[in-house]
This record gives sequence, C-alpha cells and structure tokens, in this order.
Amino acid sequence: MVSSYSGQRKLKPKMTQEAAKVGVGVFIVRDGRLLLGERHGSHGAGTWALPGGHLELGESIESCARREVLEETGIEVAGVTHLAFTNDIFAAEGKHYVTLFVLAEDWQGEPAVMEPTKCKGWEWFDWNRLPAPLFTPLENLKAQGFVLPT
Amino acid sequence: MVSSYSGQRKLKPKMTQEAAKVGVGVFIVRDGRLLLGERHGSHGAGTWALPGGHLELGESIESCARREVLEETGIEVAGVTHLAFTNDIFAAEGKHYVTLFVLAEDWQGEPAVMEPTKCKGWEWFDWNRLPAPLFTPLENLKAQGFVLPT
Repeated sequence: MVSSYSGQRKLKPKMTQEAAKVGVGVFIVRDGRLLLGERHGSHGAGTWALPGGHLELGESIESCARREVLEETGIEVAGVTHLAFTNDIFAAEGKHYVTLFVLAEDWQGEPAVMEPTKCKGWEWFDWNRLPAPLFTPLENLKAQGFVLPT
Repeated sequence: MVSSYSGQRKLKPKMTQEAAKVGVGVFIVRDGRLLLGERHGSHGAGTWALPGGHLELGESIESCARREVLEETGIEVAGVTHLAFTNDIFAAEGKHYVTLFVLAEDWQGEPAVMEPTKCKGWEWFDWNRLPAPLFTPLENLKAQGFVLPT
C-alpha cells in the first residue's frame, strides 16, 4: 500500500482537489471579435479568459453560461450552442478542470466589470490576434486547432 | 440557513454527489458500426453504452480512454480525437455527469467482456439503428443532433 501511494505521488503533480472540476467558458462574439477579461485574485491571475465559471451540481450548461456571464459582465445570454471541450491541468496550482466551451447564440448588453475582485477589465479581440498570456483552458483550446465559427 | 437549504432541496432532485463528475465515452468504429455494451450493476443498468468511464484526477482524456477501453473490452486504443460533450443529469439516481465523447483513431483487438459484473456483452451497431434503451449520455448526444463522423 505504501509503495503504491508513493508511486502515485511521483507521477502526478500535487493536486488540491479530489476530482476534476467542470468549468464553462462562453464565447460572446460581436463583429467577429470575442470578449475576454483579465483574471485576477484566483488561479490564472494575469491571464486573459472568456467569461464563465463552475458548473454547479444539477445545473444545465445553458443556465451556467447565463448565470456566469450575467454575474461577471452584466450581459444577458438567451441561448448557447456547444463548441468543444478541453482537459486542463494547472500543475502549479494543483488544479484539474474540464472546460466546456459554448457560443452565446443570442445576447444583449454592454460588458461591465461586475466583479472587480476577479476581473480587471473586458476587451474585444480577434481570434487571430489574441492577447497573451491566455488562461490555460483557452490556450489549450487554441493548441487543439480550434477555430471560432464565423 | 435552514430556509436556504430547504429551498435548494425543492429545486433540485436529491443528489448523491457534491459536484458533477466527468466521464469519457469512446467510439470504437469498425466498418461503419460502433461498439456498445449492455450495462449492469451500476447506474444505467440495462441500457446500452459506449466503453468508457470516470476521468481520474490529473489524467489526460487519451489516457482515460485507453485505460477504460482496455479494462472493459481488451481493445488497445492508440489515439483519440475529441467529438462532443453532453451534460447528463440522472434524476432517479441523483447523479450528475459531464460526458466527453472521443473517437478512437487507431485501435486493435476483438471486444471481450472483461468486467462481467459491469457489462453483459458487446455488440456492433449502425449509428442509425441503435439499440434501446441507450445510456443517458448517449441518448443526450443523439438528441443534440450528433452524427458519427464517417
């Protein structure tokens, strides 16, 4: 038993969770540009990320997307379509997320910094001219060859 | 606190987990037909499902797919591509999964029932003539309009 445990510790980064968590990232696109915010106060501080957050127990993807986008940006999302997923291991922070990416099909409002302890500001970017560094899930999505639907 | 707790109980089915879990479903396709097994001994008993299982903490999607397919069928998978995801709430069992679907790009072997306490048998099916009932994640995938790549 002891050797098995120490073997596992050697193979994996030290994790702070018991299981992978699920995050939802929401593409809000206007005139071909997508909305990103600069994270702070949590894992990935200083990186640029889509609005989104944790999928709650029993929650639909659409409810999660609507709730998180509204909480973070003030934008109201009416519907989403599924795009892709990534598997995101934050070795330095000992975190493991699966991120589900969706496109906001119908939305209204102007982005505002609703949670200043979590986001420094929202800006619009071309998919081919993204800022750096990107939040790990978005970096992984890009590395998978994902192209934003037009 | 008490009213908040009871309010939450009214809104959601009684869940047996603290957070959504992540499952991986693997499409093994031969001559245009996909491999399904009849589940038993766990949630979704009596339904037809892809080989697959829980994503472990710190694990890659490909490692999970290879491990689960080998454990369940004896088939060796060499690579996977991402296909789609579903959000699966098993109200009767109080379970919530996010399922990540992948296609085995390269594989070899003949399916065998390696875990007879979990699977009654493996069979090949056309995507357009699937058996019933399907395991909830696969049923949800079908309802999303997913079409198996040819």
